[in-house]
Amino acid sequence: VSGDDSRARLVDATAGLMRRHGYTGTGLAAIVDAAATTKGSLYFHFPGGKEELAVVVVEREAAALAAAIDAVIAGAVDVDAAVAGVFALLRQELVRSDFASGCPITPVAVDVAGDDSAVAAVCRAAFARWHQQIAGTLVRLGRSDADAVDDAWFVLSLIEGALLLARSERSTAPLDAAERRLRALLPTSTSTSST
Amino acid sequence: VSGDDSRARLVDATAGLMRRHGYTGTGLAAIVDAAATTKGSLYFHFPGGKEELAVVVVEREAAALAAAIDAVIAGAVDVDAAVAGVFALLRQELVRSDFASGCPITPVAVDVAGDDSAVAAVCRAAFARWHQQIAGTLVRLGRSDADAVDDAWFVLSLIEGALLLARSERSTAPLDAAERRLRALLPTSTSTSST
Repeated sequence: VSGDDSRARLVDATAGLMRRHGYTGTGLAAIVDAAATTKGSLYFHFPGGKEELAVVVVEREAAALAAAIDAVIAGAVDVDAAVAGVFALLRQELVRSDFASGCPITPVAVDVAGDDSAVAAVCRAAFARWHQQIAGTLVRLGRSDADAVDDAWFVLSLIEGALLLARSERSTAPLDAAERRLRALLPTSTSTSST
Repeated sequence: VSGDDSRARLVDATAGLMRRHGYTGTGLAAIVDAAATTKGSLYFHFPGGKEELAVVVVEREAAALAAAIDAVIAGAVDVDAAVAGVFALLRQELVRSDFASGCPITPVAVDVAGDDSAVAAVCRAAFARWHQQIAGTLVRLGRSDADAVDDAWFVLSLIEGALLLARSERSTAPLDAAERRLRALLPTSTSTSST
């Protein structure tokens, strides 16, 4: 159990550091320190070191955010409430972290975008997962499959860009503006309860 | 003149490295190497080291992109052509760099977003400059000042997010989708020639 604890602490510590400092800015010493364990323990649980940890963390964070967004959408009475709920979730993390943390994947994805690495591949998969999630929601709202692909890139770009700008500006203004414009654009009459 | 040359080479080298690897991922050794100069020369021209170089580079890149976008808008016959021209400019850099480089500021801004540093301040100023540029264009197209502030955050978020995703995906698909959706949203009947 103690072994499992230190594995979980390593993953949590890496997640917390990488969502703030990215892949390059997160060192093994900082991970080991934040996890209150040793380099020996890190390499015991993750023989692939920082790269292996990053892969686990990016997959976990992408799945966690997708699940949180699914729960918000499933509990919303209509599209307007669903969009408001998703933006409230995104704003919560920004404010909770004093604007140090926005999208959990972006700081890592930006660092590895040019690489042909496993970390770059899981970042791509994370964005693809959210893209599919948005496209699927839009299809349930009546969009054609082809339109939903474009619309989902549009929505995901808007959210990722707004989180990026909000973090840099240390203000929710870009996210607030994105929410207002998106709520005005989306159909509001259809229920999301089929989720 | 030789001194000026090495100063210019240091700025160019830093710009090329930081738009790909960000602030944390760009080391002094790599800058000196790419500029074909010495650490002594770097500290002669930039006593503040990497931080001072980053401030110069971010300001230069932000001004250069703003000027390029102004030129595209001034030369466009209508709003639709202006938007198409701006996206063509953004796509050009992505494709030219084989998707290694998108927005010149984002990789630096993401690295320093949590910091209370001069580099974070010039990144905020760069985004604010582009925000004002977009808002000013929208006011000329007839938007109210209040609407233009929100709309400019919306447009800038969309572009920054699409560049981020395009770079990660190694595909122009997110940028293409953003352009199609934006062109469908913007008024197309008004000339931009007052620019």
